[in-house]
Amino acid sequence: MIKHGGDIYSYQYSGEILDFSANISPLGVPDSAKRAVMNAFQSLEHYPDPKCGKLRRALGKYHNISPEKIVCGNGAADIIFRAAKALSPKSILIPSPTFGEYGEAFEQQGAKVKYYAIPYPFDIGKDLIDTLAAGDYDLLILCNPNNPTGKIINEKILHRIAELSEEKGFRILLDECFFDMTDYADLSMINHINNCRSLIIIKSLTKMYALAGLRIGYAISSDTELIEKISLTGQPWPVNTLASEAACAVLGDREYRDRFLELIGEEKSFLYSELAGLGFEVWYPAANYVFFRAKGFSRLDNELKKQGILIRCCDDYRGLSHEYYRAAVRLHEDNAYLIKILRKIVMG
Amino acid sequence: MIKHGGDIYSYQYSGEILDFSANISPLGVPDSAKRAVMNAFQSLEHYPDPKCGKLRRALGKYHNISPEKIVCGNGAADIIFRAAKALSPKSILIPSPTFGEYGEAFEQQGAKVKYYAIPYPFDIGKDLIDTLAAGDYDLLILCNPNNPTGKIINEKILHRIAELSEEKGFRILLDECFFDMTDYADLSMINHINNCRSLIIIKSLTKMYALAGLRIGYAISSDTELIEKISLTGQPWPVNTLASEAACAVLGDREYRDRFLELIGEEKSFLYSELAGLGFEVWYPAANYVFFRAKGFSRLDNELKKQGILIRCCDDYRGLSHEYYRAAVRLHEDNAYLIKILRKIVMG
Repeated sequence: MIKHGGDIYSYQYSGEILDFSANISPLGVPDSAKRAVMNAFQSLEHYPDPKCGKLRRALGKYHNISPEKIVCGNGAADIIFRAAKALSPKSILIPSPTFGEYGEAFEQQGAKVKYYAIPYPFDIGKDLIDTLAAGDYDLLILCNPNNPTGKIINEKILHRIAELSEEKGFRILLDECFFDMTDYADLSMINHINNCRSLIIIKSLTKMYALAGLRIGYAISSDTELIEKISLTGQPWPVNTLASEAACAVLGDREYRDRFLELIGEEKSFLYSELAGLGFEVWYPAANYVFFRAKGFSRLDNELKKQGILIRCCDDYRGLSHEYYRAAVRLHEDNAYLIKILRKIVMG
Repeated sequence: MIKHGGDIYSYQYSGEILDFSANISPLGVPDSAKRAVMNAFQSLEHYPDPKCGKLRRALGKYHNISPEKIVCGNGAADIIFRAAKALSPKSILIPSPTFGEYGEAFEQQGAKVKYYAIPYPFDIGKDLIDTLAAGDYDLLILCNPNNPTGKIINEKILHRIAELSEEKGFRILLDECFFDMTDYADLSMINHINNCRSLIIIKSLTKMYALAGLRIGYAISSDTELIEKISLTGQPWPVNTLASEAACAVLGDREYRDRFLELIGEEKSFLYSELAGLGFEVWYPAANYVFFRAKGFSRLDNELKKQGILIRCCDDYRGLSHEYYRAAVRLHEDNAYLIKILRKIVMG
């Protein structure tokens, strides 16, 4: 089983757990989602809408695209697995380190997965374009910003890869689950789907709106035949009614979104500079998580666990080791506490 | 896309809809589920437990089996699709008419599906045993009681099929989603899983507890390697937190269960005799739905739709036609109204 952040269930600790291991909004579940769930309660006796009509219309309005270009799922991970089955590619390329479920989903589907090692310090460069031009892949998987590094792909390189996909006839599964949190939100490739049928964009609502327990993800593509195929892959009712109602509500919750973006903007800078101040190698975070390397500190996560703090050790990511860590950006008080405890550990 | 009951979303009607097309408890969402969902709200910011530990322990206690013999999913349909992938059988036999998702799930997985026509009036007999003995199947799929006919499989025949599966080495996917509602609940094959490793039993909590919108299903087998394999097939977080909490709550809600069983016991007899009184051929219902044939009445469902009533026309079930219908058992007032409207139609 692939390791994930946020697995608070297998962790035994007597006190309160401070979870930096899952990249979830620290503002808690939005009131708008709460109200929507309560209002929807009686309708639970009905099956959910298999076509997710209401949710797709809300997402279409939010992204200013036609709902027929959207397919919804039981979290982004569900969409990745269903896309793997619908696409059934023979040969795929995954630049890594990155989110482990991509490889798992496509390998379960029998694809031959090749991993491209993103050169240190983990910037995707022209070399990937050369690799793609020389290779014979059906599918490229990109995560932007990447998980766990938090690196944004250079815009020109991304557009060149998109062009190449049309020229060479491969598809791109582009995970933009954290893209709306970046300073580049208006540069989303969703704006370009109509010119690039090979693009399939994966999105999630569970991170920014603290709805990880509810599971809401979706995919966007202008290839409506593919969207239809993904929607017909797997069971007929993937999105439960409460998830759908909560999703529709938070899409209209600009106040929560603004508060979240303001908080993350300030706190990611705080964590970045404090972690750097402790002598760690730190990558400037594009989204709500900070990636850093603690040279010489073996299993910093285990040290923190003793204090009730969870961070994500990246030793199971291809190309990383137990010196690499990912920590979510939380409320200032929590972030300051993490730094305080880390300082104690570093000072010995 | 396979047609299903309960698709109230594609039906335009100005008044209140009376939905007999989905076999869901007419008592509405249990208060115990409501309370559990509200109490769980804050925990939505965490990912669900990928191992569904709490829910599997509650189910284990309820069925008096070890939690390691249970795997949970996003509704029974999710479990069927994941089992199809985990089992990947080459050749399967499906006695029909029956629930359409079995064939869909296994065909998506590349299985060669053969349908065995259950002889009219849809009782599984010794002929199926002969067919299995003579054939070379990896998997048999049985639904007990069957959907849409509501027929229970003769106990001796079922046990002989189970023995045969051990002798010949095929597996049985046995859907007992409606079994707890029957008068034979203590004859569940769950009692025999330890003597029959080939059995995989599918269960659902969404029907008896009116939680169709929440999606909670599970599979039970003493083949714990298979259970583990199903749990590792597909995405890591199939069951959302609210579904899990509601499920744990209703498992302990004996009062709701008793009320439901008492109501269904009375009302299925009422519907059975009234439908027979109207001249229809009616099958005595084992669970919370009545199957009947309205000879000479083409598309009775369309006539009822005009009055705001949905019933399930079974024309898309293999071996049935538009003369066959399935109606859920609802509250007495609703059932009486259905009969009243049907009488008007029959009387012309």
